[in-house]
Amino acid sequence: MKPENALREYLAQIGPLNRVLEEKAWEREMALAKPARSLGLLEDIAVRLSSIQNSAQPRHERKLMVVCAGDHGVWEEGVSPWPQSVTYQQVLNFSKGGGAITTISKSAGVKVILLDVGVNYEFPPFEDPPFSEEKIPPPRRVSRKVAFGTKNLAKGPAMSREEAVLSILAGIETVLAEPGVDLTGAGEMGIANTTPSSCIACVYTGLSADEATGIGSGLNEEQRQNKARVVEKALKINAPDPGDPLDVLAKVGGLELGAMCGVYLGAAIRRSGIVIDGFIGAASALIAEKLSPGITRYMFAGHKSKEKAHIKVLEHLNLRPLLDLNMCLGEGSGAAAAMLILQLSCDHFNNMRTFEESAVDHRNP
Amino acid sequence: MKPENALREYLAQIGPLNRVLEEKAWEREMALAKPARSLGLLEDIAVRLSSIQNSAQPRHERKLMVVCAGDHGVWEEGVSPWPQSVTYQQVLNFSKGGGAITTISKSAGVKVILLDVGVNYEFPPFEDPPFSEEKIPPPRRVSRKVAFGTKNLAKGPAMSREEAVLSILAGIETVLAEPGVDLTGAGEMGIANTTPSSCIACVYTGLSADEATGIGSGLNEEQRQNKARVVEKALKINAPDPGDPLDVLAKVGGLELGAMCGVYLGAAIRRSGIVIDGFIGAASALIAEKLSPGITRYMFAGHKSKEKAHIKVLEHLNLRPLLDLNMCLGEGSGAAAAMLILQLSCDHFNNMRTFEESAVDHRNP
Repeated sequence: MKPENALREYLAQIGPLNRVLEEKAWEREMALAKPARSLGLLEDIAVRLSSIQNSAQPRHERKLMVVCAGDHGVWEEGVSPWPQSVTYQQVLNFSKGGGAITTISKSAGVKVILLDVGVNYEFPPFEDPPFSEEKIPPPRRVSRKVAFGTKNLAKGPAMSREEAVLSILAGIETVLAEPGVDLTGAGEMGIANTTPSSCIACVYTGLSADEATGIGSGLNEEQRQNKARVVEKALKINAPDPGDPLDVLAKVGGLELGAMCGVYLGAAIRRSGIVIDGFIGAASALIAEKLSPGITRYMFAGHKSKEKAHIKVLEHLNLRPLLDLNMCLGEGSGAAAAMLILQLSCDHFNNMRTFEESAVDHRNP
Repeated sequence: MKPENALREYLAQIGPLNRVLEEKAWEREMALAKPARSLGLLEDIAVRLSSIQNSAQPRHERKLMVVCAGDHGVWEEGVSPWPQSVTYQQVLNFSKGGGAITTISKSAGVKVILLDVGVNYEFPPFEDPPFSEEKIPPPRRVSRKVAFGTKNLAKGPAMSREEAVLSILAGIETVLAEPGVDLTGAGEMGIANTTPSSCIACVYTGLSADEATGIGSGLNEEQRQNKARVVEKALKINAPDPGDPLDVLAKVGGLELGAMCGVYLGAAIRRSGIVIDGFIGAASALIAEKLSPGITRYMFAGHKSKEKAHIKVLEHLNLRPLLDLNMCLGEGSGAAAAMLILQLSCDHFNNMRTFEESAVDHRNP
């Protein structure tokens, strides 16, 4: 089957939320022994998860983080203060458990998969880590390499349309290969990947190149302005068609952004809650929402990043961030952290007793 | 020993933070393989915990929540929409694990102690729950009852000075009786307890009675205004002396507020991180800071409550809330949830590898 047809078949598998369960969940929430609405977002989350997961008991037990990795031809324009080698070095570091995303995920009870769709490096064959009795197994590396990085989007399309589709399929199929998943996040590693993210944000939110371009992983103001000019040039040269999200992803996107978008789609097919990380994750969510309108109802925004355009994209997606901890690391770190909030939400909902069950008097009328 | 002398001896055991370890922790934080400051508050928390706990490896493993319970004579002024019976009923509900605080604490890996200092109810003797192999044991009930509720503070002092001191000692000694604790929170159950909290907030933050008085657990605006008038009257009739925090606690405070203050003091003696919950917890922290100036450096604000004056009190204490989830339940729920953020902070700090250890290139100069 042609990749684009395969994608179309996957998209057709994404269904609407269960409104009946949503109503039933509100009824239960209102019967629990506490002042109405006093658990705020924890209540909203549980109710929405119930309708997402098609279950009267929203679950968090199987938490998955797919860290999508790829490199970027636009790196040569000086849009990042880091050498490109950091992409593959961090993937190797993650696979040994020593990175931010792997330590935070382990702490939060989240299983990590490292998905290489576009790293500019020939990895040695991955040896499955030794059998472990730990609840959270060590990170597994999955290779679905589409290319050794994208081309320089400031000079032409970052990739072909087929490459874009293949990157999305890699994300979808990585999630579908899991035996089951309750909450799914997508993280990323890809030096220079805030640049394509800014391009996508411009295409879909109406932000100017300057407004959409932040300091990424540590640019100074002069370097940031250069990056904004690169974004502007990329949009002008490529003229991506906003009505065709695959065109946008191919021309000004990135391989790991496509994979993240695929992770969201795969999670929705599986009726898993989706947790968005930072700016790159939000830009990928814009593509996903264009491919599958309404998929944002499956999504929770893990946190508000320091990257300046992030909150604008979240507002455009109508998502309210759960955490605001001044973070801007990426890798999926904010999403993995936020999964603990979803855990608290499920657990209060499933385990609290009602006024009736607990023999607690109700408020005066 | 006279109770007030015992309190003085406890206060003398609270020491300063370890500045040397704080500096060393910053050095480590800067060496970890991530852009500088990219983990935001997670970095700040780990560094401060290191200096609080006197340890190069900040710990979160032993998490404790002491839920302090008491009743309030001022309840008869119509300051709460709930019957007073809810206080003891919820304590019984918590002791069976069915409440919000107990389900959230279990989810967050937090051990709960239910401390009765002033509930207007004769509890049946507490049977220790059957032996459990679970990591988080079922809640234990501890009786240090000082009185069957306070007197009506709108008509005179809520309690005697000695009762106030005894409530604080109950909190201190409950924490000190634990074999060890890394993070300590104080929660509360006490119908009408936002009223004494508003009184204390007025005394120490300069807020007017109207500004300091919120809707608590669900008042309408007319009822809220009545509550504000009660607060104003209480302050006028009792004229508490701001320079004497025990006088403030005794005249316009509450028994469980005294116990929460004691929990903070006991935690600081044990060099445990302290996590503040909502408005009542913050009001108790005002008393603790007056008794032991600088103790706020041991404190983290768990969350920002919907109760309107909460954020004002936190600002006065110079504490920034970690979570903002639209919650206003009390019981310790926001503090227990936030302990998971402190957990993530410790775990990234202790387990991430440095640039050197992970062979990741550093950024370009």
